[in-house]
Amino acid sequence: MDVKLEYMKPGEIETRSFEIIRQELEDRGIHPDPEMDAVIRRVIHTTADFDYVDNLVFSPGAVRSMKEAIASGAWIVTDTNMARSGINRRLLSSFGGECRCFMSEDDVAAEAKKRGVTRAVVSMERAAALDRDIIVAVGNAPTALVRLYEMIRDGMISPRGIIGVPVGFVNVVEAKELILKTGVPHIVARGRKGGSNVAAAIVNAILYELDSERG
Amino acid sequence: MDVKLEYMKPGEIETRSFEIIRQELEDRGIHPDPEMDAVIRRVIHTTADFDYVDNLVFSPGAVRSMKEAIASGAWIVTDTNMARSGINRRLLSSFGGECRCFMSEDDVAAEAKKRGVTRAVVSMERAAALDRDIIVAVGNAPTALVRLYEMIRDGMISPRGIIGVPVGFVNVVEAKELILKTGVPHIVARGRKGGSNVAAAIVNAILYELDSERG
Repeated sequence: MDVKLEYMKPGEIETRSFEIIRQELEDRGIHPDPEMDAVIRRVIHTTADFDYVDNLVFSPGAVRSMKEAIASGAWIVTDTNMARSGINRRLLSSFGGECRCFMSEDDVAAEAKKRGVTRAVVSMERAAALDRDIIVAVGNAPTALVRLYEMIRDGMISPRGIIGVPVGFVNVVEAKELILKTGVPHIVARGRKGGSNVAAAIVNAILYELDSERG
Repeated sequence: MDVKLEYMKPGEIETRSFEIIRQELEDRGIHPDPEMDAVIRRVIHTTADFDYVDNLVFSPGAVRSMKEAIASGAWIVTDTNMARSGINRRLLSSFGGECRCFMSEDDVAAEAKKRGVTRAVVSMERAAALDRDIIVAVGNAPTALVRLYEMIRDGMISPRGIIGVPVGFVNVVEAKELILKTGVPHIVARGRKGGSNVAAAIVNAILYELDSERG
């Protein structure tokens, strides 16, 4: 190889990346709470965007609650197949969980069209109908968060956690603020930023923490 | 709905989002070159991160070249299933193309382990072996870009385009700089930022432009 690159194995690259992130956070005088540290650093690792230090909002005990949910077999529901694709489903399944996304199902599209709502709205209703412990991870559709908020308020769904990180310019900021008002354990990226990659990174951070804890 | 949200259909939300992005670019005195405008705005739409205005580097005629390649049936090869999942494959197939990712194939993992290289390296060699017109979209693995660079230099592959937007803290900046030295049409996000979502957004921007041009 005639180019100057540090030669490392993939695992070493990740370890080194997390060290760099920790160092740069320290250089900025930032020392995240240990409970949130793994999530914050993995989101920065996924985006190379240090804005998430300020954007990410955790309800008290959110990470612990979601760990407990996954450890007891909760499923993950996402609002994009891209987020689902990024989640370590092999590891999730080792805890008994599955990851579902209803967005591309034919009957979801048909029902959404008929009712004049988004597919994300219908997808969240499908999640409620699962009638099991779930964590909902939203990286794209603010309407998914709005429908979740309504269903929580109306007692139609009681998720074990919400990861609310849609990205965008219309209705996104407002939809995230709604989730902050719920009593449900949540991790929200305040403001415009987020995405399916961020949603997947947060789920994976929790999965990897859980995995390391079981030794 | 008891929350103040602009009610819009999904298509209207996207149109409005792009208007907001255009306006905010104008407010900053930024008027992207028309050839690059759709790509830049879709990446901002995907990330809500205006840094990409400065980060994205286009070789001369890169978008036009990649449009021509896709219009004549080129395939897309990605370095993550997440990027593949985010690409509008229905639209790509309407031009005769397919989207491939070799990362999760069992024999790729086995060969990588045996040779002590990354799966991304073996994946790029699989892409070369396709022996057809391809555009390579890299959102994650700098080693994919390094191997591409070597194979281009050695005449082993001649892609119709490279979308080089891995994200990260180790070897990422350097690997992207290599691609800038090739004669291959390229779109690169200089620096640390990028991601599978960004790779998919760039491919989709080109697909949507092509689609609108055929009327």
